[in-house]
Amino acid sequence: MFTYQPPLKDIQFVLTALLNASKTLNAIPAFAEVDNDLMSQVVEQAGRFASEILLPLNAVGDREGARFHDGVVTTPTGFATAYKQFCDAGWPALARDPQYGGQGLPQILDSVLYEMLGATNTAWTMFPGLLHGAYACLYQHASAEIKERYLPEIVSGRWLATMCLTESNAGSDLGLLRSKAVPQADGSCKISGNKIFISGGEQDITENIVHLVLARLPDAPKGSKGISLFIVPKFLPGDGTPETRNTVTCTGIEHKMGIHGSPTCSMQFDDATGWLVGEPHRGLAAMFVMMNAARLAVGVNGVGIAEVAYQNSLAYAQERLQMRAVERPASRKNEAADPIITHPAVQRLLMNQRTWLEGGRMLVYWSALLLDTAHHHPEPRTRKSAEARLALITPIIKSMMTEQGFQGASQALQIWGGHGYIAETGIEQYVRDSRITMVYEGTNEIQAVDLSLRKIVSDGGQCLNELLNEIESTASLPREAALAGYAQATQEVVQRTRKATSNIIKVAASHPVVPYQIATETLRLVGHCAFAWLWLRAADTAQANHDKDPPFHDAKLATAEYYYSFILPETEQLLRVIDNTLKNSASGKPTAFLAKAISDAIRPD
Amino acid sequence: MFTYQPPLKDIQFVLTALLNASKTLNAIPAFAEVDNDLMSQVVEQAGRFASEILLPLNAVGDREGARFHDGVVTTPTGFATAYKQFCDAGWPALARDPQYGGQGLPQILDSVLYEMLGATNTAWTMFPGLLHGAYACLYQHASAEIKERYLPEIVSGRWLATMCLTESNAGSDLGLLRSKAVPQADGSCKISGNKIFISGGEQDITENIVHLVLARLPDAPKGSKGISLFIVPKFLPGDGTPETRNTVTCTGIEHKMGIHGSPTCSMQFDDATGWLVGEPHRGLAAMFVMMNAARLAVGVNGVGIAEVAYQNSLAYAQERLQMRAVERPASRKNEAADPIITHPAVQRLLMNQRTWLEGGRMLVYWSALLLDTAHHHPEPRTRKSAEARLALITPIIKSMMTEQGFQGASQALQIWGGHGYIAETGIEQYVRDSRITMVYEGTNEIQAVDLSLRKIVSDGGQCLNELLNEIESTASLPREAALAGYAQATQEVVQRTRKATSNIIKVAASHPVVPYQIATETLRLVGHCAFAWLWLRAADTAQANHDKDPPFHDAKLATAEYYYSFILPETEQLLRVIDNTLKNSASGKPTAFLAKAISDAIRPD
Repeated sequence: MFTYQPPLKDIQFVLTALLNASKTLNAIPAFAEVDNDLMSQVVEQAGRFASEILLPLNAVGDREGARFHDGVVTTPTGFATAYKQFCDAGWPALARDPQYGGQGLPQILDSVLYEMLGATNTAWTMFPGLLHGAYACLYQHASAEIKERYLPEIVSGRWLATMCLTESNAGSDLGLLRSKAVPQADGSCKISGNKIFISGGEQDITENIVHLVLARLPDAPKGSKGISLFIVPKFLPGDGTPETRNTVTCTGIEHKMGIHGSPTCSMQFDDATGWLVGEPHRGLAAMFVMMNAARLAVGVNGVGIAEVAYQNSLAYAQERLQMRAVERPASRKNEAADPIITHPAVQRLLMNQRTWLEGGRMLVYWSALLLDTAHHHPEPRTRKSAEARLALITPIIKSMMTEQGFQGASQALQIWGGHGYIAETGIEQYVRDSRITMVYEGTNEIQAVDLSLRKIVSDGGQCLNELLNEIESTASLPREAALAGYAQATQEVVQRTRKATSNIIKVAASHPVVPYQIATETLRLVGHCAFAWLWLRAADTAQANHDKDPPFHDAKLATAEYYYSFILPETEQLLRVIDNTLKNSASGKPTAFLAKAISDAIRPD
Repeated sequence: MFTYQPPLKDIQFVLTALLNASKTLNAIPAFAEVDNDLMSQVVEQAGRFASEILLPLNAVGDREGARFHDGVVTTPTGFATAYKQFCDAGWPALARDPQYGGQGLPQILDSVLYEMLGATNTAWTMFPGLLHGAYACLYQHASAEIKERYLPEIVSGRWLATMCLTESNAGSDLGLLRSKAVPQADGSCKISGNKIFISGGEQDITENIVHLVLARLPDAPKGSKGISLFIVPKFLPGDGTPETRNTVTCTGIEHKMGIHGSPTCSMQFDDATGWLVGEPHRGLAAMFVMMNAARLAVGVNGVGIAEVAYQNSLAYAQERLQMRAVERPASRKNEAADPIITHPAVQRLLMNQRTWLEGGRMLVYWSALLLDTAHHHPEPRTRKSAEARLALITPIIKSMMTEQGFQGASQALQIWGGHGYIAETGIEQYVRDSRITMVYEGTNEIQAVDLSLRKIVSDGGQCLNELLNEIESTASLPREAALAGYAQATQEVVQRTRKATSNIIKVAASHPVVPYQIATETLRLVGHCAFAWLWLRAADTAQANHDKDPPFHDAKLATAEYYYSFILPETEQLLRVIDNTLKNSASGKPTAFLAKAISDAIRPD
């Protein structure tokens, strides 16, 4: 009943027509050979794996769930086999360095792959999903010896990885964590402590598991400046000798709302042997390489979920007959009812889903190109500027696309009505599975603070303004009638965003709490600048390529129209809230008026 | 871990200070004796039942679920006992006619009761929740004989009731239903057909079940004008002789996302004996008495869910220590972290929850007074006008408050973070349970069409304008500084709504599809007029009563401020979308431009 068709045409539209990805990639020596043919081959194969292997396991994983008994975790039927097929096909190695067995392809292809994996099986995807962040973290920070020993196993997918950050009292605030690391004479450390919410902390699909663990060395300063990163394998690799079990054990798994197929483990480290990765006390910075990769990945997952939710909404809306259309074609005059897709309310839900997910796809593939540029471009300045822009856009992707994954799934349930609430149809599982994406890898509120404070206020808005300049220069190109309206709307939102953020930066100097109060509005406003820009470019591209495939490009133009008519108006609300807040803090009302109002009002009665 | 404190103070604020409910009620002879003391006694006892009896069964019901075996449904542990206690305390009889054993109290007290029942156990509340609609439907439409036989059993709660509407091909569109009724010589009918999604269709908590069933008589016209209503008991009441089992059976129950404790039954009627209620072929109108009661009830449930979600968000936010506040009090300088309630992002989530739920409470209690007036006021004109206003407001309550129940629960999960996603904490159950309220008793999209087309366009906006006039006359009263700003904002939104709806009515004449396209925006815009009005009155009331309880009234004023600063700005977005749509349909673009754009864009690729 539940279906997924890899959205190859739209993916190609974004990769090729819109972004001209191969051109950007070919300017990077590492990707000089990557052409459109190669990319479409990879994309097609990825789509086949997702739809043929993973989708059928999605409901199984939800129903069976991961099980725990006496320290051992059993994954749902078929998960281990699918993972073996995944590795045999070389997917974990796709965008990794050939030095460690990688295929040396660009990360933009990983984004496409993971969009489709996440669309078809979010729980399963969490197993390999953490590999790439672990790879990036070790690649950048580990010693040559560790890299030599671990990276080939990670690149091949033979060993999976985890992020061991959270403790019961340290979630969003890692500065509170208590796990300890005691250096040993041989250069290793003994790690002790309890971690919770460790995805894939224990499982039965790989022979070894590589835990990346945050802990404190004995001489560590308090807070987040005293955290170090360690690599702690489940089995200690012997040099030719048999591997020995390390003293890290899974003490239980959580019963969760969704992603039942992914074991969320409590892990106990009991003088477990580990090795420092990177510098002492600088573990958080190293771990953030992994965290940023995970944030992008979870945003990509949101796009995938929104896509599959849309496809199943559309299929049902075309088939389900209820009520007569307001304007019926003569051919249906004798029918008792019309497909619900003819009803404007259903059309609105479908178009909301479609516009957000196609916009999200443009945004995440564009950002993946930034990632490839940041990692591999020969020019240090180009690398640096791509990196800064990616840092700016990462929290937007994480927050807005996970929000949309959840809302898109919920809108699918709405279109399916009562049938969507029933477990068998598969819709409600997506609502449950997608809900965690708004929480993990930094809550969406933390993303907003990250963008507003660390990415905008901290550099006086410089990096943001460079992006806004680029958007304005696209928007100022001459265009004919319809598209000129979109360009004008894009310029308007950019100008208003420039003004609003500049006011926020000003107010922040005297009322530091204010940018925090409107961080979510700030994030969504900047996000809309990016979406307006991408939809303008999509409309330009669709117009230029129209005759190659008129129905596809008409649909793209109509979706752009939908963005400007129905979605972009959210900025009116955002700007009004920002304006109200700035006015209140600037007026004769006491400093941080809203903070006071809020603290008055949050008292229970 | 999961808590619920009956929000008695806020309930009293709305009933007494804001609405002066006893004054309105005392003008109705049936309620001449209802005073504030009586009302607060009832409210307190209701709160005790909900928090002491129902809350502890909420997680049990979710975990065990209703079970089905061979036609028999077993409800979760404790559900039957709680229901017996509920009946013994006389709760089903509260607002029913003394002629049938009722207590003759006003329905506003039922609203308070059901807010608290829904807050503590939505699944359980579905059992008695349908009683009152069945009562109202039979009370208004059944023969004296049926009323005599059934109403006392329903009023006492000894027999429960169901709404048997949906069939697999007839959900939102009841005109498609196929169940048949064949009249018999003795005045009864033989009912045959299959119904799905019947809440409480079978259960083990009452000895008999009264099904209200829609079916077609042999001479019925096609579509919705050929549907009749029948009463079909599980056991046929004998006159002194033993009761005989009717030929209606439960063939299975659904596995659902939530409300596991409420059995959602497939029912087979196999020449079952029933009796016509009301006139032949007019069953839909009679059933809509029950449906409208159910729509109000599900909106009330949304308020309850939003309240309990808020309370548990607040408790956790006060206790959970993560990160340091932007502005820390000197007393906490040496602490490693502050309660998350000090973080603006969490304050925003809490205030969103609080503002919507307290606004919702004002709206539903106010509408319950309209219901009491519509049913019992001695003046026919007053009854009629209350009825029209209630009809206008019902879809707003159903749609906006179920949306907020779900979003409020989801925001609670967000505040609880990873812990909120874990089943044991009880938060995620509310997200799952609340999701169905946006679907059943008419999807929220159907509510929007009902308001926009049947309640606004159909009477040329007259009933709406009467409400808007009343809001404006409240807003035009003289006020001092701060509150004058709220009054001005209220007037502004009313004026813009008047203009927008009048434009919609005009466009509807030439482009009938347009009001459907922006029905949700229209509903939310009108809803904000009501919320702005109620928050203005709440602020007035809080100011007038300030000295009686300064902390409570300061909090109320701060919440009003929050409404105007952060929530009302949604109307900017709504108005822009409405405006864009009207402009498109009025411009040189083809008629119903968006319908075309949408139908272009919804093609799969």
